[in-house]
Amino acid sequence: MGMKKFINDPKDLTKELLEGLALSNPSRLTLAENKLVVSTNLGDKKRVHIVSLGGTGHEPAISGFVGPGLLDISVPGDIFAAPGPPVCIEALKMANEASQGAGVLFVVLNHAGDMMTANMTMEMAEDMGLNVKKIVTQEDISNAPRDNWDDRRGLVGCVPLSKIAAAAALDGKSLDEVYDVAMKFNKDMATLAVALRGATHPQTGDVISVLGEDEMEIGMGQHGEGGGGRSKVKTADETTEIMTNALIKDLSIKSGEKLMLIINGSGATTGMEMLICFRKAYKVLEAHGNEVVASWVDEILTVQETAGFQLFIAKMDEELLNYWNAPCDTPYLRVTK
Amino acid sequence: MGMKKFINDPKDLTKELLEGLALSNPSRLTLAENKLVVSTNLGDKKRVHIVSLGGTGHEPAISGFVGPGLLDISVPGDIFAAPGPPVCIEALKMANEASQGAGVLFVVLNHAGDMMTANMTMEMAEDMGLNVKKIVTQEDISNAPRDNWDDRRGLVGCVPLSKIAAAAALDGKSLDEVYDVAMKFNKDMATLAVALRGATHPQTGDVISVLGEDEMEIGMGQHGEGGGGRSKVKTADETTEIMTNALIKDLSIKSGEKLMLIINGSGATTGMEMLICFRKAYKVLEAHGNEVVASWVDEILTVQETAGFQLFIAKMDEELLNYWNAPCDTPYLRVTK
Repeated sequence: MGMKKFINDPKDLTKELLEGLALSNPSRLTLAENKLVVSTNLGDKKRVHIVSLGGTGHEPAISGFVGPGLLDISVPGDIFAAPGPPVCIEALKMANEASQGAGVLFVVLNHAGDMMTANMTMEMAEDMGLNVKKIVTQEDISNAPRDNWDDRRGLVGCVPLSKIAAAAALDGKSLDEVYDVAMKFNKDMATLAVALRGATHPQTGDVISVLGEDEMEIGMGQHGEGGGGRSKVKTADETTEIMTNALIKDLSIKSGEKLMLIINGSGATTGMEMLICFRKAYKVLEAHGNEVVASWVDEILTVQETAGFQLFIAKMDEELLNYWNAPCDTPYLRVTK
Repeated sequence: MGMKKFINDPKDLTKELLEGLALSNPSRLTLAENKLVVSTNLGDKKRVHIVSLGGTGHEPAISGFVGPGLLDISVPGDIFAAPGPPVCIEALKMANEASQGAGVLFVVLNHAGDMMTANMTMEMAEDMGLNVKKIVTQEDISNAPRDNWDDRRGLVGCVPLSKIAAAAALDGKSLDEVYDVAMKFNKDMATLAVALRGATHPQTGDVISVLGEDEMEIGMGQHGEGGGGRSKVKTADETTEIMTNALIKDLSIKSGEKLMLIINGSGATTGMEMLICFRKAYKVLEAHGNEVVASWVDEILTVQETAGFQLFIAKMDEELLNYWNAPCDTPYLRVTK
């Protein structure tokens, strides 16, 4: 289909979208030097600060979740590209100083570029004596089995994980404690994606993935990486049931467990479809004996105009639920008191 | 392109999407008989209640804005179709009773079907002695001049108008006063839409509008009604500047006036594009001597997988801004304290 989008010079995409984000949310975040997106809450008190990094082109993630009660700093790369270590170190230094000694949790999605940047950054941070712990999100069940965790990609789970970590930080937990809370959530979360139509790279016009007019693909990654689940298009209920059951199996969910359920639209999916699929996933989980105690249906982490969604499930206990329900005020996630 | 969506039986779309909305937002709304979507805040105290109606297929609008601090009841029709007067009367009766004598503001978008239903409903409400005032939103500048106001279609403006009216109601204003506040906003708001790609009707598969691969259309209505502004695709900045200037002219905006600025994505528009266009509109208004005091960039009222956006501007004074900033907690708009 080629590239038919409201853009200007493709090389300015990231700069311009971040300007728009800052101008539309002056009470929540500011755009600092080197495109760092910084919460207005930065340095409000001695507490752990939360930093994340990632390419743009996935709006609203991740910079749209900077603000009081969630990310303190995001480090955006260019479209689908990790930022370099120097700007990440700058963010970690700023957050570490703002934390007044409490330290920094560095949330990284498991993608090759992000990981290379994060690992180099962590080495530099150690040399500089910064108090930083890294946590890697890797919950895509499509491309590796659970016992090969390190090969799993990070999908939408980075956002609720960061939210929970941020609430724990505001609650006065130490860096080790914040890390432990986040890891508890991390270990018991899983995502599976499905796509009906792929997207184009907004700078190059390259087609990220191609699906036939009657095809869908379960397991498509964030940049069109195949998951091997290509089939004829199924109904919403059939598709959602297959995906929910796959997540139940991967997480070994038992009857009686309380869950978070998220439908993350991939970009061009209608709200109508997302709600219909949420309904089915909810019913499958209910029939399995589970209670959905936390929900979110929206475009959270997108891939341009991809049609499809990510189905996310995580196990919840009282502590995680309290942190999920703690107030936050960001451009694209707000929890009221 | 035909219809390639995650749905089940097309006749169940509305029922299923409303189920999903209710299941994902149990603290905010419930799904009552006859598909009425009802705020958990209904009848909380003696105050004006706010009711609106409209077809589904435009998610999250309008039912996604039911909840404490915004709509008390929405009356959904089927896809792109107005509900019938009987169910609207049921909603008005329920809201009137819950208002404990304070009365009901009935927010109606100016579209033929919605208006026919609303007018018949108002006649019945009068016969029954219900305390209801109707307000019609009609802010699309593309299809009629300002002095022919009654021919203008209602677009995204119904949502901020309902938000402001609801806050005035919670503030204890009388029905006449709530109406006056809403009318002040209504008279000085305007929207212009642009589309790059049309959509399909999710029940029939009918193509709602067709645009050539190199075409865009300024002024496209909510159901593909043409606005006469078809041209070759322009850049984001060129398009936004044309649209912002048209709104400035229509509203006779003077330097120094404070404004609300909204970019409403039409369905398949990327967050990246919306933010880039917001940025340009903001800069055009800034250069014109105006201050943007209220912002919103999101998918609010969509038309399935349409690619494009609505640019909305309204004049703001201190009262309107206070009501806009008052807390609310709905599925797709939340204002924190």
